[in-house]
Amino acid sequence: MSKKNAFYAQSGGVTSVINASACGVIEACRANSDKIGKLYAGQNGIIGALQENLIDTGKESAAAIASLLHTPGGAFGSCRYKMKDIKDSRAEYERLVEVFKAHNIGYFFYNGGGDSADTCLKVSQISEQMGYPIQAIHIPKTIDNDLPFTDCCPGFGSVAKYVAVSTKEASLDIASMCASSTKIFILEVMGRHAGWIAASGGLAAENAGDPPHIIIFPEIPFVREEFVAKVAATVKEKGYCVVVASEGAKYADGALISGSLHKDAFGHQQLGGVAPTLASMIKHSLGYKYHYALADYLQRAARHISSKTDVEQAYAVGRAAVEKALEGKSAIMVTIERGSAKKYSWSLGEVCLSNVANVEKKMPRSFITKDGFGITQEARDYLQPLIVGEDYPPYKNGVPQYAKLKNNLIEKKLSSSFSGD
Amino acid sequence: MSKKNAFYAQSGGVTSVINASACGVIEACRANSDKIGKLYAGQNGIIGALQENLIDTGKESAAAIASLLHTPGGAFGSCRYKMKDIKDSRAEYERLVEVFKAHNIGYFFYNGGGDSADTCLKVSQISEQMGYPIQAIHIPKTIDNDLPFTDCCPGFGSVAKYVAVSTKEASLDIASMCASSTKIFILEVMGRHAGWIAASGGLAAENAGDPPHIIIFPEIPFVREEFVAKVAATVKEKGYCVVVASEGAKYADGALISGSLHKDAFGHQQLGGVAPTLASMIKHSLGYKYHYALADYLQRAARHISSKTDVEQAYAVGRAAVEKALEGKSAIMVTIERGSAKKYSWSLGEVCLSNVANVEKKMPRSFITKDGFGITQEARDYLQPLIVGEDYPPYKNGVPQYAKLKNNLIEKKLSSSFSGD
Repeated sequence: MSKKNAFYAQSGGVTSVINASACGVIEACRANSDKIGKLYAGQNGIIGALQENLIDTGKESAAAIASLLHTPGGAFGSCRYKMKDIKDSRAEYERLVEVFKAHNIGYFFYNGGGDSADTCLKVSQISEQMGYPIQAIHIPKTIDNDLPFTDCCPGFGSVAKYVAVSTKEASLDIASMCASSTKIFILEVMGRHAGWIAASGGLAAENAGDPPHIIIFPEIPFVREEFVAKVAATVKEKGYCVVVASEGAKYADGALISGSLHKDAFGHQQLGGVAPTLASMIKHSLGYKYHYALADYLQRAARHISSKTDVEQAYAVGRAAVEKALEGKSAIMVTIERGSAKKYSWSLGEVCLSNVANVEKKMPRSFITKDGFGITQEARDYLQPLIVGEDYPPYKNGVPQYAKLKNNLIEKKLSSSFSGD
Repeated sequence: MSKKNAFYAQSGGVTSVINASACGVIEACRANSDKIGKLYAGQNGIIGALQENLIDTGKESAAAIASLLHTPGGAFGSCRYKMKDIKDSRAEYERLVEVFKAHNIGYFFYNGGGDSADTCLKVSQISEQMGYPIQAIHIPKTIDNDLPFTDCCPGFGSVAKYVAVSTKEASLDIASMCASSTKIFILEVMGRHAGWIAASGGLAAENAGDPPHIIIFPEIPFVREEFVAKVAATVKEKGYCVVVASEGAKYADGALISGSLHKDAFGHQQLGGVAPTLASMIKHSLGYKYHYALADYLQRAARHISSKTDVEQAYAVGRAAVEKALEGKSAIMVTIERGSAKKYSWSLGEVCLSNVANVEKKMPRSFITKDGFGITQEARDYLQPLIVGEDYPPYKNGVPQYAKLKNNLIEKKLSSSFSGD
């Protein structure tokens, strides 16, 4: 029996460490070249597989692959292409299996969040039904940290570190200026449905009363009066107030704070309008001068301040995916498990993909203080280990040196083409 | 003759390295304790002097002072208090000299931008007229890099590095996603009047055609049609477009881009609305999905990614201020001079404050490409050395450990009080 080839693709929003997972997959495949043939990567994620645009990772030098460990973004391209439901679009899944078959691909490593876990499961099932069984392994990745069964998600720890560090630094700035100038600083962070990222801003505080003074979570219905009162009390006590707000913050009726007030000049709804909206409320009710920052992609791309713990975990889940495939496993997601001792430790595990699909892990209420504006010690104990350690990229002329891959496409074998949208 | 005491104050917007200058001043004073008595710092800048709120820096340990070298913000507090014109408010200057006299202060070290240079000059002049001559030395600081006579301004190099690194990282993110999702990324940066900070985004590009593809300078009148056309051409060629935009960008008639379209829900003019306005233009004309980031205070507080060159220069100008005072100099600003060789080198110099006041250094037109959307090799040659080198702060539990000073106030000696606004 000839060796099977393998396929790897990146899915959804990229992170500062998704390439570390790619590095883990590629290096593990190379270390097992007696068992795995070529490793192809999807150009722009799963779209690359559907369109038979396969990158030959074998053309990249060992040094180039090693440099993925410190390179943010998605080195092979990612996509926001969600495979349709299997009932509506069986042809799409069949096309995937056809492409895999044409290139003798027996291993499918899919690196993404909840949607890609679902796709991964279906590829495993349909390929079996089609008589060409593919071992499909899901490699977790999401800055939202909302995948179930894994203690944390690669990508999150680095965003958490970025938000904690940025909050701490900006707080020192505002504290210096508040006597005669700006009294309010708001940092808007990502996290549409879960407050994990906003919560990590709380790690900026070493002692009770340290900034940030207010955290706005999507899990806690926003009440304007309570928010304004808390800001007023904080400024009275501290002279200034630092707020970390999740982009997904909403009112009790589910309406997004960002969507409720702001449209741009052309009538388009603004993305990421939580910070200016909160700032307006404060200005209107209390009159304080404010500043706000919107970190947006900077937070998930900031490899220069990635968490070493996160980088190591991202690499490890990539390697483990290959090793588990070689153990004959399929339809699983690699998980990160936390040791039970007080001192943080982690190891790798796995979970059946059928359990993962469509489950979203929100912040437990016990992680949020009673007043809804801060994190508890329990949250701190969970979050802090994930941001520990620095893992700086190499620099030249003052800027980081990131990987540059050749990304050579292999020749297509199928005559038919496929057009995703 | 008894030893004179010294006074140090921070002025205006703080930076990630203004405390490095403070560290230089304090360590130099301590090294010259045979000639200089106590060193007081103004609580919240010059307001501290006017209100006789003087911090005794002598109460801080050598280790605490050394840690200022890696601590952002203003450790003693800064302020946006501009001393009024001498004709309108001679009393204010006289009050300053009175406070200095009461505390036997003979040296005034003022750490700020253009306004504080002017104040520094006037204190020198009036104190002489009042028969209590004070040696007033200005220590340059401004992220805007717009002070004349000095090759660069401490604080700028670190913001430039932050913007270059962030632009490079976010560009990798957007490049990964553009095939199926966001095609436009805009980073809005500081710089009301001069485009130095926006220009530094250009250092993210190592080769021609690398992102950022468009830089918007305050020096170049903005023409919407040209901007939109350049975005369209870039997306056509590269698949995506990265824009770095100065908050001070304006139309030919001087109207700010940010001010021309956006008011918040309460009718207040929005600060920093350049990015959303540009994004709206693109969405409206071309329909592309966009993201934007507003770095705001994060950029000037980001000590975690400060330029080593900048940190060293900031420290050096602080030390030099003390040394020049001890040489008997007054009414000068310490300057940074660039060596004439191709390989970057710098040394310290000085300039009379009477030459500095009210001169603003803008970007030379030769630093900006002909089409107005990029930087030239000349700009690159100037900017690049300023961001070279990393100088990481120490970390504990995943976050930087920044200085915590006692900031003990000394007893007041004057019965009268002064109320600044």
